[in-house]
Amino acid sequence: MKLVTAIIQDKDAYELENLLAKNQVPTTKLASKGGFLKAQNITFMMAVKDSQVDYVLSLIKSTAKRRKQMISPSVSLEVMGEESMIQPIEVEVGGATVMVTPIEQFHQY
Amino acid sequence: MKLVTAIIQDKDAYELENLLAKNQVPTTKLASKGGFLKAQNITFMMAVKDSQVDYVLSLIKSTAKRRKQMISPSVSLEVMGEESMIQPIEVEVGGATVMVTPIEQFHQY
Amino acid sequence: MKLVTAIIQDKDAYELENLLAKNQVPTTKLASKGGFLKAQNITFMMAVKDSQVDYVLSLIKSTAKRRKQMISPSVSLEVMGEESMIQPIEVEVGGATVMVTPIEQFHQY
Ligand code: NI
Ligand code: NI
Ligand code: NI
Repeated sequence: MKLVTAIIQDKDAYELENLLAKNQVPTTKLASKGGFLKAQNITFMMAVKDSQVDYVLSLIKSTAKRRKQMISPSVSLEVMGEESMIQPIEVEVGGATVMVTPIEQFHQY
Repeated sequence: MKLVTAIIQDKDAYELENLLAKNQVPTTKLASKGGFLKAQNITFMMAVKDSQVDYVLSLIKSTAKRRKQMISPSVSLEVMGEESMIQPIEVEVGGATVMVTPIEQFHQY
Repeated sequence: MKLVTAIIQDKDAYELENLLAKNQVPTTKLASKGGFLKAQNITFMMAVKDSQVDYVLSLIKSTAKRRKQMISPSVSLEVMGEESMIQPIEVEVGGATVMVTPIEQFHQY
C-alpha cells in the first residue's frame, strides 16, 4: 500500500472530498497552513492499494485549480531584494501538492 | 525506526493517550476528520524503534473500539443508488486505522 | 525527494517559518500537541530534494531551543511511582523532533 498525502487549497477541498467519497476512497483530513504565504489549506491522507495510486492521483488532479489571489506577505521578503514590502501582492495559489510514500504495514482494528 | 500513524476515534483517544504515557511512548496528536462521514478523530504519530512496533500496535489495538452510531451523510450518496438520502444512517464507527512507515533519519535537537 | 517532518515548540515556530521562507523552502504547518505533557506544538512538513536535506536539518536545528517550563501533568503518573501527583512539575520542553522519510512520487498540479 501507499500513503497519498495531498495538500489542497481550502476552496477545492469540498469538491475533492465529494469525489473521493463517490469513488469510495477513505480519507483523513487535517487543517493546515502554507508556510510562506499563510494560505489556509487542507491536508488529505489516503492509504491506497498500489494499483489504485494512479487513479487517486487523477482524482486529485481533476479538482486542483490554480487561481490568482492577493495575499499579504507574513514575513519580510529580503530574499527578493525588497526591504519593506508590505503591500498585498498577487500570487498564483491553489493547485495540489501531492506525495506518495511507502506503507510497510496497514492495520484496521 | 518506524513511524506509526494511528487514526483513532475521538472517544478512544484519551484512553490511548494515557496508555502510551504509562508505557513512555512519546506521541504527537493532530486533530483530524474522516472524509466521508465527517467523524471527528485524532491522528497520533509515534516514532518508535523497530523492536517496539509490535508492542505499540498492541497498545493501539487494545483501546480501539467499534461502535454503532447515527451519522448524517455529508455528501450525496449516488454511489449507493440513492438520489436524496438525507436521513441519518446507522454506521459502525471507531476502531483504529494504523500505518507503519519507514523512517530514514530521526533527530532530536 | 524526502519528506522532512519537524515537530517544533510553539515559541520557536515563527522563527523557523521565517528562516524557511528566507531560504525559499516551502512548508506546510499543522497544529499539534505533545501526548504526555500536552505541550502545544507545530508540525512542519517539507518535501525537499535529497541534496537539500542536510541544509534543511541545519535550519531546524538552529531555531530549536530547549527551555525549562512548569507543566501540569495531564495523566496519572503511576509509572513514576507517584499515585496522585497533581502539582505542576518543571520539565525541559522545546527542541525539535525531526523525521526524514522517503518520498516515492512528488507531484504539483
Ligand atoms: Ni504496498
Ligand atoms: Ni529503522
Ligand atoms: Ni528521493
